[in-house]
Amino acid sequence: MYTLRVLLNRYWLMQQTPFSPIRWHDNHLYLLDQRLLPEKQQELVCQTLEQAATAISDLVVRGAPAIGITAAYAVYLGFRQSRQDPAYDLDAALEFLTKARPTAVNLAWAVSEQKKILQVESENTAEMLLVNAKKIHVKDIEHNQLMGDFGAELIKPGSRVLTHCNAGALATGGYGTALGVIRSAWAAQKLECVFASETRPWLQGLRLTAWELAQDGIEVDVITEGAVSSLFSQQNIQWVIVGADRVCANGDVINKVGTANLAILARHYGVSFMVVAPLSTIDTATESGELVPIEQREQSEILGTYYQSENRVSAWNPVFDLTPAGLVSALVTEKGVVLSPDKQKITDHLRLK
Amino acid sequence: MYTLRVLLNRYWLMQQTPFSPIRWHDNHLYLLDQRLLPEKQQELVCQTLEQAATAISDLVVRGAPAIGITAAYAVYLGFRQSRQDPAYDLDAALEFLTKARPTAVNLAWAVSEQKKILQVESENTAEMLLVNAKKIHVKDIEHNQLMGDFGAELIKPGSRVLTHCNAGALATGGYGTALGVIRSAWAAQKLECVFASETRPWLQGLRLTAWELAQDGIEVDVITEGAVSSLFSQQNIQWVIVGADRVCANGDVINKVGTANLAILARHYGVSFMVVAPLSTIDTATESGELVPIEQREQSEILGTYYQSENRVSAWNPVFDLTPAGLVSALVTEKGVVLSPDKQKITDHLRLK
Repeated sequence: MYTLRVLLNRYWLMQQTPFSPIRWHDNHLYLLDQRLLPEKQQELVCQTLEQAATAISDLVVRGAPAIGITAAYAVYLGFRQSRQDPAYDLDAALEFLTKARPTAVNLAWAVSEQKKILQVESENTAEMLLVNAKKIHVKDIEHNQLMGDFGAELIKPGSRVLTHCNAGALATGGYGTALGVIRSAWAAQKLECVFASETRPWLQGLRLTAWELAQDGIEVDVITEGAVSSLFSQQNIQWVIVGADRVCANGDVINKVGTANLAILARHYGVSFMVVAPLSTIDTATESGELVPIEQREQSEILGTYYQSENRVSAWNPVFDLTPAGLVSALVTEKGVVLSPDKQKITDHLRLK
Repeated sequence: MYTLRVLLNRYWLMQQTPFSPIRWHDNHLYLLDQRLLPEKQQELVCQTLEQAATAISDLVVRGAPAIGITAAYAVYLGFRQSRQDPAYDLDAALEFLTKARPTAVNLAWAVSEQKKILQVESENTAEMLLVNAKKIHVKDIEHNQLMGDFGAELIKPGSRVLTHCNAGALATGGYGTALGVIRSAWAAQKLECVFASETRPWLQGLRLTAWELAQDGIEVDVITEGAVSSLFSQQNIQWVIVGADRVCANGDVINKVGTANLAILARHYGVSFMVVAPLSTIDTATESGELVPIEQREQSEILGTYYQSENRVSAWNPVFDLTPAGLVSALVTEKGVVLSPDKQKITDHLRLK
């Protein structure tokens, strides 16, 4: 287990990267405002649970693991508020926080982890909540590094890969899930080329993944999502590597809209499909993907400034989609690799020590 | 055949639409500047062949049939210039015009149609070139209306369809190819829903198709290209309906990048796939799609203002892609319908009177 000293040491080490998506400093939570990247590196400071929850809703911070870490710190902020103001309704605040985004399972997971501490009366509750948030944060990065190495083992030297959205340091505590695999494979000199699909409507691939990889000196080519068939037929791609917002008991994957397209196209062109997801993303309580509520976001994210008052033009804007387990070649967690995942294999994998 | 009076009458009728992508007026060529839609309806006036060719390169006008029509008028403009200025090199100008866009076959087709007139010395050459350009223009619209009706016959009442890019009035002389089918099917009250994919990086689906359909009172929902799997699995779509920049002898289709994705995804989900293309788009001289040069456009179209000076981020930006004939359920031309097109069926179709 972690001693406080080991934890603090790792925490210090972890801040020595070109950028920190989430950092705790001087009793405040600092979130790199991802809405402004790549033009501006600017942090948003959260002093309250409500500020952190709103930052999650407003996509200041996004990506299932990063949302979980932010929520863990937010619970501490809320507890601190409840100590300063006896009228503060912490239960209602935790409910508000849990509902900040509906799809990712890590948000509810992190809140419930912190609730375990809240359930035991102690004069050290505040400190324990903060230490636990930092622990969740540090462990996330360690897990990403493990997944990075497990995933990279599957990749042959000279490979070309495509990733989608941003499952990178920016979506996690640091290092990244899908981009963690790409970082490890790049460090092992296995990658000839990295392609990133731009990922409309928020352009996380263009704005975040390309920026993040460039920070680490990894060259990247951005494509539109329409160009995937052209890419697969002309550019000799071996792997599609993506993260996951939720992996169901049967191996179905809920991830950024556009992921299912990639899985079907990859199968058509004989390209392998890797999902990189920490165990906290695996939701054994949900049998299959059809049962997961898919968040629909504002039409304006697609219609932009073009059609503010045109009532005949509307938009259909689901944020996530469902990739059936049968299209997944490999699921990578911090425990290792599950090839062609299904319910039994995932159950066995979770039982591994 | 056309008498001048019939032609002028049809020409007048054809201008009575909510908008004209291409119009000849007062001895000048007026092109609706599609780069500015839907915010602004503004025409660009072309007085020279070079202005028209540049308008084609710069995407003021786009879509294979519209490019052909513009080129036909441009040849007349060039001929007029050569009459006014004996030093004007018409051959070089026609070469410049033919190279304005590399992929669509209609451009070269229209120029070669006009060259037939140029080859015969006559004092009426100028008038013949202009009449011929207008004839190409009027016939294009008539063919679109025929294709619209043929295509609509394939659609069952209560259907939901998806279109890609803009194969509409804006891409043609008027009425449209894929959108012509949608117009005819909508008029026949067969359509429950029309979806348009936004079509990155130029957003022709969002900016042009949605605008154009709304002008005609047809309701439309825009989706990102990433949402196609979600759409097919949740929204009960019967047809994908697209245009074509070129159809090869074997039935392979070259069309806007993203089309091949849709064809593969449609096959996966059991959705039918219709290509609507006038005979001028069928290129029997090109055996199969691999032989067609695919235009690559500037990286900046994808990278935008985000990465002007970041040398580690680049973009791969093919404009068209290849949909193998085997994925096409129906090819619709002004002569009728070819189901599951292949080389033999297309040859037979072209021989039809």
